[in-house]
Amino acid sequence: MVAPLGSELVARVLITGAAGMLGRKLVARLTDADELVLHDIVQSTPPARVKARSVASDLSAPGEAEKLVAGRPQLIFHLAAIVSGEAEADVDKGYRVNLDGTRRLFEALRAVGDGYKPRVVFASSIAVFGAPFPEAIGDEFLCAPLTSYGTQKAIGELLLADYSRRGFFDGIGLRLPTICVRPGKPNLAASGFFSGIIREPLAGREARLPVPKTVRHWFASPRAAIGFFLHAAHLDTASLGARRNLTMPGISATVGEQIEALRRVAGDAAVKRIREEPDPVIQRIVEGWPRNFDARRASALGFHADGSFDEIIRSHIEDELTPRPA
Amino acid sequence: MVAPLGSELVARVLITGAAGMLGRKLVARLTDADELVLHDIVQSTPPARVKARSVASDLSAPGEAEKLVAGRPQLIFHLAAIVSGEAEADVDKGYRVNLDGTRRLFEALRAVGDGYKPRVVFASSIAVFGAPFPEAIGDEFLCAPLTSYGTQKAIGELLLADYSRRGFFDGIGLRLPTICVRPGKPNLAASGFFSGIIREPLAGREARLPVPKTVRHWFASPRAAIGFFLHAAHLDTASLGARRNLTMPGISATVGEQIEALRRVAGDAAVKRIREEPDPVIQRIVEGWPRNFDARRASALGFHADGSFDEIIRSHIEDELTPRPA
Repeated sequence: MVAPLGSELVARVLITGAAGMLGRKLVARLTDADELVLHDIVQSTPPARVKARSVASDLSAPGEAEKLVAGRPQLIFHLAAIVSGEAEADVDKGYRVNLDGTRRLFEALRAVGDGYKPRVVFASSIAVFGAPFPEAIGDEFLCAPLTSYGTQKAIGELLLADYSRRGFFDGIGLRLPTICVRPGKPNLAASGFFSGIIREPLAGREARLPVPKTVRHWFASPRAAIGFFLHAAHLDTASLGARRNLTMPGISATVGEQIEALRRVAGDAAVKRIREEPDPVIQRIVEGWPRNFDARRASALGFHADGSFDEIIRSHIEDELTPRPA
Repeated sequence: MVAPLGSELVARVLITGAAGMLGRKLVARLTDADELVLHDIVQSTPPARVKARSVASDLSAPGEAEKLVAGRPQLIFHLAAIVSGEAEADVDKGYRVNLDGTRRLFEALRAVGDGYKPRVVFASSIAVFGAPFPEAIGDEFLCAPLTSYGTQKAIGELLLADYSRRGFFDGIGLRLPTICVRPGKPNLAASGFFSGIIREPLAGREARLPVPKTVRHWFASPRAAIGFFLHAAHLDTASLGARRNLTMPGISATVGEQIEALRRVAGDAAVKRIREEPDPVIQRIVEGWPRNFDARRASALGFHADGSFDEIIRSHIEDELTPRPA
């Protein structure tokens, strides 16, 4: 369902946050771009098949965004961000990178002028929403974030919509569900267990479950997320009107449903590696998070969620645990 | 219903935008403050009864906000803003004053530290909302502004909520209805006619009506708006939770209903001074504006709208057209 990239229309592509988990997966799909610039605060290493130039710099530092857009990329994926936990722990860094970095990029695009109007795909997050919630959050529900990260993403959305309305660029913001199964090592993010209880047992390791099995949350696989980005790159934005930010479709599942899916895909032995270890702090944080959405607009525009939580687990096994021919 | 200001709890007060129409009216009510700082880009002249120090500076310039809050005001009314039309015409100025100015003020408050946690009352606007709308906009409706001014106010709201959540100050944002009847000369604002068709006929002058009489909009008198600010200064914010921004109650009236109210208050002669002169540009702008709200939260918290559009007209006559004893 994903349109192939690489027509002449998107010959020049810029990705910020290219060294991150989603950034690397997205880069691996951009094999057809004539000119691909990978930006991150650290050097990114493109996969062998991908022609790319890597730039390491601080997007929030004066002048850096201007350098990045000097080549007039026709398509920009703006993924760079300080993650939720760090933005909460370090107020200055979170606002500098997530707000100022985004604003400097948008301003640099505007400053080019001369009819330049690239497509900008912005990675937003369901963290723009905060409790209390209706049973399913619709496309007209308010953004009342309960974290600085969510605040910064919500501000990025507003800037994106205004700059698009004014014709400075052609933007679309994607509110990503919680990405699950996140590959790699367990981290300290409060949401880490949602992936950990699948990833760790599949790898033969124990996982801790800090919340009751009744906790419900909203998920997309890395594969679905990359599909969102690629679809957004080519979407006809005329149908968006002024509302440029879309809640992406996802899978709403309880922890209990996650575990039953794991049992169906990998058997009882895997499920036995999950150890319940209630953590009141994490429970309280998770209570403020969205459980379910009615992502009608994005679905109507052709964004596709994973088919089921079982499929999320199977895509993790295929993409992360299956050896690939060299 | 408005609690008197001037208890020891709010001995030191700062007002930004003090030279503006609402700023001046608010200052006139702050007769009890021990220390009152009036800030604006121009010098403000306090009424004779009010002890105040006037500061003229650019709040968006580095260091100015720090100077303003050095005296640790316990209550800050943040009204300073570039208005809608100017923010649309001058992108840089609108973002600099409305976004950077607000952020610098909030940052300066945060930087004081040392347990300092003043009340901040922020003048937001129904311009944070953009069409399409439900019949009446509820307290959980999304902010999807259709102007840069609305975008900047929505960003200010997000910053206010996050800074309050983090305990940097104790903020409350008031989404003001369109202020009507606006005293003074007709201006070029697209919304100017809503006041013009009342104010000009009452003063014996002709007024132009550029839209059909079926156009519906959301109003508060200057008197009601000042009531909102004074109520917000003393409100117990614990009941607000993390949602610090409130749509203020107002009067929803069609232009036809405005005109009939004028007829009841001032007679046919006044109404005859309104000349219908359709303007497609203004009609198109006004189509994107909110018509009606269900401002349930603010009403439950004790914010009071005018009783009727007739009362709005009568308060204009009392406050602006009635000679006062010296």
